[in-house]
Amino acid sequence: MNRRKVIALAGAGVVGAGAAAAGAAALTRDHEPATAGTSGAVDFYGERQAGIVTPAQDRLHFVAFDVVTKDRDRLVEMLREWTAAAARMAAGRDAGLIGAVGGIPEAPPDDTGEALGLPPSGLTLTIGFGPSLFRDADGVDRFGLAAQRPAALADLPRFPGDALDPKISGGDLCVQACANDPQVAVHAIRNLARIGFGTVSVRWSQLGFGRTSSTSTSQATPRNLFGFKDGTANLKAEEESLLREHLWVRPGDGPSWMEGGSYAVTRKIRMLVETWDRTSLAEQEAIVGRAKGSGAPLGGKDEFEEIDFTTKGADGQPAIPEVAHVRLAHPDQNGGVRLLRRGYNFVDGSDGLGRLDAGLFFISYQRDPHKQFVPVQTALARNDVMNEYIRHVSSGLFACPPGVREQGDFWGRTLFG
Amino acid sequence: MNRRKVIALAGAGVVGAGAAAAGAAALTRDHEPATAGTSGAVDFYGERQAGIVTPAQDRLHFVAFDVVTKDRDRLVEMLREWTAAAARMAAGRDAGLIGAVGGIPEAPPDDTGEALGLPPSGLTLTIGFGPSLFRDADGVDRFGLAAQRPAALADLPRFPGDALDPKISGGDLCVQACANDPQVAVHAIRNLARIGFGTVSVRWSQLGFGRTSSTSTSQATPRNLFGFKDGTANLKAEEESLLREHLWVRPGDGPSWMEGGSYAVTRKIRMLVETWDRTSLAEQEAIVGRAKGSGAPLGGKDEFEEIDFTTKGADGQPAIPEVAHVRLAHPDQNGGVRLLRRGYNFVDGSDGLGRLDAGLFFISYQRDPHKQFVPVQTALARNDVMNEYIRHVSSGLFACPPGVREQGDFWGRTLFG
Repeated sequence: MNRRKVIALAGAGVVGAGAAAAGAAALTRDHEPATAGTSGAVDFYGERQAGIVTPAQDRLHFVAFDVVTKDRDRLVEMLREWTAAAARMAAGRDAGLIGAVGGIPEAPPDDTGEALGLPPSGLTLTIGFGPSLFRDADGVDRFGLAAQRPAALADLPRFPGDALDPKISGGDLCVQACANDPQVAVHAIRNLARIGFGTVSVRWSQLGFGRTSSTSTSQATPRNLFGFKDGTANLKAEEESLLREHLWVRPGDGPSWMEGGSYAVTRKIRMLVETWDRTSLAEQEAIVGRAKGSGAPLGGKDEFEEIDFTTKGADGQPAIPEVAHVRLAHPDQNGGVRLLRRGYNFVDGSDGLGRLDAGLFFISYQRDPHKQFVPVQTALARNDVMNEYIRHVSSGLFACPPGVREQGDFWGRTLFG
Repeated sequence: MNRRKVIALAGAGVVGAGAAAAGAAALTRDHEPATAGTSGAVDFYGERQAGIVTPAQDRLHFVAFDVVTKDRDRLVEMLREWTAAAARMAAGRDAGLIGAVGGIPEAPPDDTGEALGLPPSGLTLTIGFGPSLFRDADGVDRFGLAAQRPAALADLPRFPGDALDPKISGGDLCVQACANDPQVAVHAIRNLARIGFGTVSVRWSQLGFGRTSSTSTSQATPRNLFGFKDGTANLKAEEESLLREHLWVRPGDGPSWMEGGSYAVTRKIRMLVETWDRTSLAEQEAIVGRAKGSGAPLGGKDEFEEIDFTTKGADGQPAIPEVAHVRLAHPDQNGGVRLLRRGYNFVDGSDGLGRLDAGLFFISYQRDPHKQFVPVQTALARNDVMNEYIRHVSSGLFACPPGVREQGDFWGRTLFG
């Protein structure tokens, strides 16, 4: 029974105590596999968490939480409740068994209701654990987890030019909600925050209105707010051997609880679009290293062609400048390391100085951020001429555990179980 | 030639100086009429501005500008440029004749590029003029317009409970961009800001991710972040005689330049969703006056039935409480006045206090806000029990002139021309 059916019943006046029983029906059901832009459901259960190689949905609501309890059991109980709610919402159902229009008028609804009548919309919910969950800013091991902290979860270094705001950085837990309907993504995060009341508190939250990456060869490369295709060389769901090498944590990589998981790095990158928009087309293309229209590398013809960084222009200089973004970020220039990116464009109103507060909420997944994101970002932070037009204002690092195998399993079982 | 065709050419490497000529082709073209959720185009030209009775699109980017020039001619020239760009973008084309990938590498692109390849997506752009354009905060009539200021554009009164932030209120000009793809709405506002650089400055800007109103009988009533259907009694595009009575400015209503226009009132209404979510279903329904599931008035059966405010419950009390939102806001309780609402849900991250910064960006259109919005909002501000869960944090009032009749006509011609 999905949300659409529940509301049909509610309209007919027959939803009462029975809704709880109906809501408790088996979690599995027939559904169409969701692809970008569709309304179907994505499987919540599996070996890996959904929302990593899932074809990138169109909209994002990302949230970081602080854990406000010191009670480990209470935290684990919340993770169990979250998992059950996440599975229901991914299937297009209410967050709770009773729902928004259930049979107990004297109790708060078990779902906030704004997604009533909306289909699953490809919703995925992906959880991650931040470094501070293992040892907080005061060095306290609140939950007895310090020995389980992977080396890969060591704090990121400060990069040249970083302008991070600590209020919108870090976090003990994160949840990434991606969906093809933003109301469905917002509804999911809001209901997890509701369920976690008293156990966790929202530290920061970010909406993204448009995907900037493809995570499947079936998807066209979208455009960022510089107007360019970016992330053409992104890891894709179909590249299984590359995913094994670069995305998923393997036995021997660190503590076993992360085997089959992946590490997320988030960066909120403010783009100074007003300055960019007054830059010539030729300069924009030189900074990016690609043609604005086709996305082809400079000196090339096709977006997806192998980039030849030795190509010279008519002036005898490299067709792709030494400091172009595409060169500095390319695996060939970074010891072959790859990332899986699934970032989103954002506009958060204006900045009080006459400009839009706009940019890229960068999300990357990888096997070890210190061997992948850190060296690439170090090269970019030092040399990328694009830095004149961007500011990194928030940063997050999260260990995303393996998938929830089946009903009864829960987010974090391998860590807490 | 729409954006999709331009990019196909760009990919084939044939876009050069010719793109400018192609971009300058006739503005009219065949298109499918857009409805909510579709990718087609909405006519830009017409007797009325689009974006008022147009079936409410799914996504919003609303912006208010300050005029930073004192030169009336420069302002008018910008309005002409904006109008041409708006017509092109509504048709799914680049903002400028040269485009993002045009033939002049040494010049900044004529379009920012992030909507390349995207269809028109039902984009409408609607302009309004704020009270401060006619006489600024210091009483200065910068543009010789003071005598043209309609009585209906007098500043709104302060309402009980108002918690307005002046930095995100008011504005000399506003543009409402609605579309079914948020990237198309963002692109449109950003390009108008780019074109207006040096003439106007962004004062505030608001994204809305989900429509909360229907403006056509063909649309289902969506849900706000309280999880309820709201605005069921909204004015609809099909109700022509009601629109003449309540929406469009008529001859004799004030200065003739507004004939055929309408007045917009915007209110950013923060919803304290965390508090709401801990309120019982029965209390939520009593506050709203409707069933959460079906949207039917309490004591009734169907969302769209005529509300009988005299119905008593089993306890002998009114089924719809005296202070329920639906009663206080209903035309029957407000001398029959009606509004056309086309608001949007928003989430602007978090508030630094552990809560989502979420709510409703309310937009209403009407023939005279002082006879329509003001009395209704006065009643709500005084008595609505929903006030415990909401805060009005921003307010805007704008005179939206009649439509742009044809190519060569421009936004504001009846005022400046």
